[in-house]
Amino acid sequence: MHAPVLVLVDRPAGGDGPGPASRLVDARAPQLAVTDLAVTRGDGVFETAAVRHGVVQSAERHLARFARSAALLDLPVPDPDVYRAACAQAVAALGDLAADGFVKYVLSRGDEESPDGARGWVYADAAPDHAAERRDGVAVVLLDRGYALDVPRTAPWLLQGAKTLSYAVNKAALREAARRGAQDVVFTTTDGHLLEGPTSTLVLRRGRTLVTPRPDAGVLDGTTQADVFAAADALGVDVEVRDVRVEELAAADAAWLMSSVRLAVPVRAVDGVALAVDADLTARVNALLVARTS
Amino acid sequence: MHAPVLVLVDRPAGGDGPGPASRLVDARAPQLAVTDLAVTRGDGVFETAAVRHGVVQSAERHLARFARSAALLDLPVPDPDVYRAACAQAVAALGDLAADGFVKYVLSRGDEESPDGARGWVYADAAPDHAAERRDGVAVVLLDRGYALDVPRTAPWLLQGAKTLSYAVNKAALREAARRGAQDVVFTTTDGHLLEGPTSTLVLRRGRTLVTPRPDAGVLDGTTQADVFAAADALGVDVEVRDVRVEELAAADAAWLMSSVRLAVPVRAVDGVALAVDADLTARVNALLVARTS
Repeated sequence: MHAPVLVLVDRPAGGDGPGPASRLVDARAPQLAVTDLAVTRGDGVFETAAVRHGVVQSAERHLARFARSAALLDLPVPDPDVYRAACAQAVAALGDLAADGFVKYVLSRGDEESPDGARGWVYADAAPDHAAERRDGVAVVLLDRGYALDVPRTAPWLLQGAKTLSYAVNKAALREAARRGAQDVVFTTTDGHLLEGPTSTLVLRRGRTLVTPRPDAGVLDGTTQADVFAAADALGVDVEVRDVRVEELAAADAAWLMSSVRLAVPVRAVDGVALAVDADLTARVNALLVARTS
Repeated sequence: MHAPVLVLVDRPAGGDGPGPASRLVDARAPQLAVTDLAVTRGDGVFETAAVRHGVVQSAERHLARFARSAALLDLPVPDPDVYRAACAQAVAALGDLAADGFVKYVLSRGDEESPDGARGWVYADAAPDHAAERRDGVAVVLLDRGYALDVPRTAPWLLQGAKTLSYAVNKAALREAARRGAQDVVFTTTDGHLLEGPTSTLVLRRGRTLVTPRPDAGVLDGTTQADVFAAADALGVDVEVRDVRVEELAAADAAWLMSSVRLAVPVRAVDGVALAVDADLTARVNALLVARTS
């Protein structure tokens, strides 16, 4: 079933104005001019969150990251109350699909040709079926992102760590993976560190310790990974957030790509070499993620 | 005067279908769904060309680069006849503005939620007034693009050399320049080479020789620079296309940022240090560029 929902956010930074800050519109109708900066420059930021049990999962982590992305792009500060309300509108309109759906929310710098400034929207729909990937895992290839580990500090205008609408490189990397017979990508730095997938956070297991790369080294601060790490005690694991060398992936006892809608997907091969899949921990992690009610 | 024109290109790769390949629509009305991949992923390519004397200037160079950008992104091959016709439609609709206007044309991968595939459009309007910049020049800052010179060869998925809609970094670099009191940027490589501006080609003069960085080293193949270099004899200069070291900018006898609509703009300072402006050659180059009838 497929019934997209769209809520336009006319005043993403809040404040007073005519009419409500957000409004439900026809998701299949054209809503953007070709001069919107989201279109012409990929000049905006977004979040995609899972909707289950009728609520947005990890909602506050997503809103916090959304605000950090906006700050990195010098966009107006999105008002969390406005986006909470717009997401609630979208989730309500999803109806039964709110049992297993997603919301994607956006802040665009606005229309080049209009003085109205930043605008946003919330798009929601049923979630795609990722059960096979969660069970069987994905083969990944390591691809160079072209940057050194310290680039977020030395060159912040490269926007590493911001979740922007300029994702053409992420899509190109996934096409390169497909050409190499793989389904996903782990980006690496020029100086030999692991980063993240194009739309996911990398987590390794070494013994009873889960490891993920530092968010301040040019990766997105993973919302799903953070929920898993916060549940370390329940899962019976230790956790580490640190720089991770490329060699550590092949040497790991298991690895996952974690993201909001697909959840924890095992990495079953790296550059054509098989990696062990930890089916038990994968199942426990995903059960925990599916059960989240906030 | 401001009267934008929009032509939608429904069959950017040509071929048969119901109705014409392109059609004039209301430029101020919403035309794109929020699920268009141009919006959600910056997943498309574009060209901006000047319109003068009622024609698109350097039209064939732009079409050739558009096709190369599309190929780098594995997009369908845009049909040059379709885009020529759509540009002609847009230019005709510009009326008197076709004396000093621009066309911006786009190829998007299409809508995530639609099986129709790639679509395009041509947007046209009066050109902004850049006379002051052409006369007074711009102060630039050197900003690291974070990549080594050979990255287009070692990591083609980074899409260096393609003119994509994922331009958030280019806009962030211009904001960084403004913070430093400058108006524009020259990107550099991590290994000490000059690249280009966020929306322009860098050209240096050393004695009677004009020098520009190699297009296969991660810069766009400049259409305006190419027209200038093709007129070397008329301008009384020699030309070189090669790797250019960062130190060569401060040591140059003059430098310009060249682009289709703004034309040749002198660089009058680099990181706060004045650079000589060659007013005579600037005037002759821009006269030549304004006069182009193809």
